[in-house]
Amino acid sequence: MAAAAPPPPPSPTPAVISEDLLPTGYNVFTRIRLATIVDVPHIHKLIHQMAVFERLTHLFSATESSLSSTLFPENSPPPFTSFTVFLLEVSQTPFPLIDQNYPNFSPIHKTVNLDLPIIDPQAEMFRSCGNDVVVAGFVLFFPNYSSFLAKPGFYIEDIFVRECYRRKGFGKMLLSAVAAQAAKMGYGRVEWVVLDWNVNAIKFYEEMGAQIMQEWRVCRLTGDALQAFANINI
Amino acid sequence: MAAAAPPPPPSPTPAVISEDLLPTGYNVFTRIRLATIVDVPHIHKLIHQMAVFERLTHLFSATESSLSSTLFPENSPPPFTSFTVFLLEVSQTPFPLIDQNYPNFSPIHKTVNLDLPIIDPQAEMFRSCGNDVVVAGFVLFFPNYSSFLAKPGFYIEDIFVRECYRRKGFGKMLLSAVAAQAAKMGYGRVEWVVLDWNVNAIKFYEEMGAQIMQEWRVCRLTGDALQAFANINI
Repeated sequence: MAAAAPPPPPSPTPAVISEDLLPTGYNVFTRIRLATIVDVPHIHKLIHQMAVFERLTHLFSATESSLSSTLFPENSPPPFTSFTVFLLEVSQTPFPLIDQNYPNFSPIHKTVNLDLPIIDPQAEMFRSCGNDVVVAGFVLFFPNYSSFLAKPGFYIEDIFVRECYRRKGFGKMLLSAVAAQAAKMGYGRVEWVVLDWNVNAIKFYEEMGAQIMQEWRVCRLTGDALQAFANINI
Repeated sequence: MAAAAPPPPPSPTPAVISEDLLPTGYNVFTRIRLATIVDVPHIHKLIHQMAVFERLTHLFSATESSLSSTLFPENSPPPFTSFTVFLLEVSQTPFPLIDQNYPNFSPIHKTVNLDLPIIDPQAEMFRSCGNDVVVAGFVLFFPNYSSFLAKPGFYIEDIFVRECYRRKGFGKMLLSAVAAQAAKMGYGRVEWVVLDWNVNAIKFYEEMGAQIMQEWRVCRLTGDALQAFANINI
């Protein structure tokens, strides 16, 4: 005989609760931390997704091995003095506050409240350390230099957030983490490039106070042309 | 009584000399070498002249002291792994071939034959080591990174040749020295920026095989805007 259904639990005592305190939506816990060599498989996949997004896979030749040896060489210089990667991780449970031992950088934690849960079809592929921690994006940057200011700055080579995590402020969090690090180190500026037809991005950058250097054009010497120019009788 | 004038020396035996071997014009001996901290006063003056040339002296705040501490800090990393300066020096007499002990870079020598001598009104101000050695220009560059290639490259922040040394191929020599170093290190590319109205420079760069990234715009976050963005609650 089936056991009788238990009686319903007593209703909680009604109380006056401020609407502000009512839990609404879905909390996503985020962490920005320095990447290490063990993150290279994720970094490789993120860069590949970026190449797909930019329709530039014909220019993509990075391998996990070449990324490891160039981003994390033996006797790596300290973070921020050379090529540096911040990873953005998300979790449905809070990150431990003292979670990893990064002497040069304390991970940045933020809780984001969203109206709808994020469905991540590639969660398994981007699983990071921790139970339900997933890598959602990255930023790759390195020092540049202003001779007028006689100060270093940072140049952001890549900033990328996986598709299902976009339009939630995560890109801004990554950019802001680099700006905060620049300010902390007394650096003079942060620079990056944007495509001239990407008017939404340009508007966003201008609103946050960035100047768009309209007259500047980047020149690039690469491949055979680089070799040829290097070999001329100087 | 005045001594009688000595007889004129005998004329040299006439000989058939190929016209190619006839010395014509004026030889200028050039050397490109790594700058060191003792070159900072010259580097400071060169950067200031560049600011004057670009009509950007209001943005110029570098001092000899700030250049020393940022370009040549204590425990400097090896050249080419961070901010690096090549100096172009000229002399009317040949440079000694084994002239300085730069373990990381052998100075590049070239003799340039010019139709007219160079009159340098600032020779004293730019006097370098050696009897008649004068600093004529510089290039400041540092590593950048391509994540698609998983390779470093070089970014040229400044390239400058003093006015009386222009239009003699010296700028190309400095650029080529950086390209040669990039190729030697297996680096993937060399990049710099040019102003879009500088059609002569763009033509020159295109002829040497550089691509001009027409759709790219550089974004810069600096000064108060950088501080503000760094301080937002990320």
